[in-house]
Amino acid sequence: MKPPLSIPNATISRLVIYLRILTNLEKNGTNRTSSDLLAEEAQVSAFQVRKDLAYFGRFGTRGMGYTVLTLRRELQRILGLNRRWNCVIVGMGRLGQALADYPGYMESNLYEFELKGLFDIDPHKVGMQFHGITVQHINDLETCVRTHGVDMAFITVPVDKAQDAADALVKVGVRGILNFAPTVLEVSEEVAVEQVDFMAGMKRLAFYILNPHLKALKEDEE
Amino acid sequence: MKPPLSIPNATISRLVIYLRILTNLEKNGTNRTSSDLLAEEAQVSAFQVRKDLAYFGRFGTRGMGYTVLTLRRELQRILGLNRRWNCVIVGMGRLGQALADYPGYMESNLYEFELKGLFDIDPHKVGMQFHGITVQHINDLETCVRTHGVDMAFITVPVDKAQDAADALVKVGVRGILNFAPTVLEVSEEVAVEQVDFMAGMKRLAFYILNPHLKALKEDEE
Repeated sequence: MKPPLSIPNATISRLVIYLRILTNLEKNGTNRTSSDLLAEEAQVSAFQVRKDLAYFGRFGTRGMGYTVLTLRRELQRILGLNRRWNCVIVGMGRLGQALADYPGYMESNLYEFELKGLFDIDPHKVGMQFHGITVQHINDLETCVRTHGVDMAFITVPVDKAQDAADALVKVGVRGILNFAPTVLEVSEEVAVEQVDFMAGMKRLAFYILNPHLKALKEDEE
Repeated sequence: MKPPLSIPNATISRLVIYLRILTNLEKNGTNRTSSDLLAEEAQVSAFQVRKDLAYFGRFGTRGMGYTVLTLRRELQRILGLNRRWNCVIVGMGRLGQALADYPGYMESNLYEFELKGLFDIDPHKVGMQFHGITVQHINDLETCVRTHGVDMAFITVPVDKAQDAADALVKVGVRGILNFAPTVLEVSEEVAVEQVDFMAGMKRLAFYILNPHLKALKEDEE
């Protein structure tokens, strides 16, 4: 079944969460699950879980729930996480360097994401090595993208250089950008941009510090 | 009205998003809004917006929608973002250094978050300056927390040191932790932890690269 023409962005965010829950269930040796259980773990309603999955087909058996392994594989396929995605980092300041070493790449057993290049415009950074990869000048981006078939990029340049970095990436055919610069990038329609916002987590923390009695109830709700 | 005893975690995440939308509406000079408009911007249903707000009281007038300024102020108060939160960073490696300089702190005009200390266990890092703040040894954490009334901390240490960092923070009374280490922290019940997960953004990118026709429709859904 092909995805329909319109799917809420929030559904995709939740599919990523369901996939993480299913992966953990599988690790723990759980064979079957239900929309109620997925809903509880993901902190949404069971109706929402069923609605999100229904965009992509029929996965469970009425009254029987879902097979963990099958649903995990289906979600992985739907999200495109049953293949390797080649990535580059543009901006090898502190944040870029931190990301090059980020152990989260190995979070899943599947290594869905592989770093293929590191780029900067600063001649002092070009030639430095991180994670076994040599930093190249942004002028060499196109060669790297053509050679390795790079799909996505992290933008970790200063905020006033972020649009230039995006333009360079889009020009050579990179189709997905994870933007760490706190600014809205203008890209052509066929390019996907996801914004990383550390501050949202801090804002949620503020609420939970003020309402500590809610903290303990987080897992009981719904 | 005091918050009820149980509120879904996801509601708090959405309140943060509604607040950002309202702040932008206010900046653009918009005086009134509706659950339909907030729903569209936040990519949830209008019913969800009304349900999320109803946990905290009645804000709109039936058929008239909401006053942007009033609702923005109410959400700010509910989330605890009408006051200053003092923060420290534990772990002054590349990621900690990047965060000390992160321009996102100034994203809002309100400067709700203020850095009060930087900590590490590495004697080579102690004494270095970032963002005008001198890195201290973690042994001096308690003095800093007592002096400045520190509320929350970023943990940016390597994954195998994250629990030690959390223990040190909790022991001196820090009540909120934004954890960048890809590991689940064990903390006492009264401490709030939010996990930063870069990989979720990359997983959504994979989907949108595979389904570029959905990208353009992101804003038309619901």
